[in-house]
Amino acid sequence: MARIIVDVMPKPEILDPQGKAVHGALPRLGFESVSDVRQGKRFELQVALADESTLAEVHQIAETLLSNPVIEDFTVRVEA
Amino acid sequence: MARIIVDVMPKPEILDPQGKAVHGALPRLGFESVSDVRQGKRFELQVALADESTLAEVHQIAETLLSNPVIEDFTVRVEA
Repeated sequence: MARIIVDVMPKPEILDPQGKAVHGALPRLGFESVSDVRQGKRFELQVALADESTLAEVHQIAETLLSNPVIEDFTVRVEA
Repeated sequence: MARIIVDVMPKPEILDPQGKAVHGALPRLGFESVSDVRQGKRFELQVALADESTLAEVHQIAETLLSNPVIEDFTVRVEA
């Protein structure tokens, strides 16, 4: 078995209200060292074998089901 | 500047309805090679320096603000 990680983040130019909300709360809780926060989604996909055809399929899954290509970017990687 | 990644995932024993919904949709879209899907959150925190005290602070942020320790696990890592 292998695990493929798909990380989906808002595009840099897109407003990230969730990230802004977290960032806004930090000073009230006494946290001072974080200058920016962005929030996205993480998917762990279990596959039998992380070969080329499976990775190609996961790319398609990420593009069509896990992310909105208009406002989000995604990365695909195999986790050891 | 440095970027610290906080990944928050549901604990293994906790039901993950979002992951189940994604997994259930895959065969209908013709995707066969994924046997399980789990969905969580990914946070990117921008800091001036990823030193020990900052990492300790981010751990506290992850525990108190970014995750629910009852149902979620989190990991903290510095992204190169």
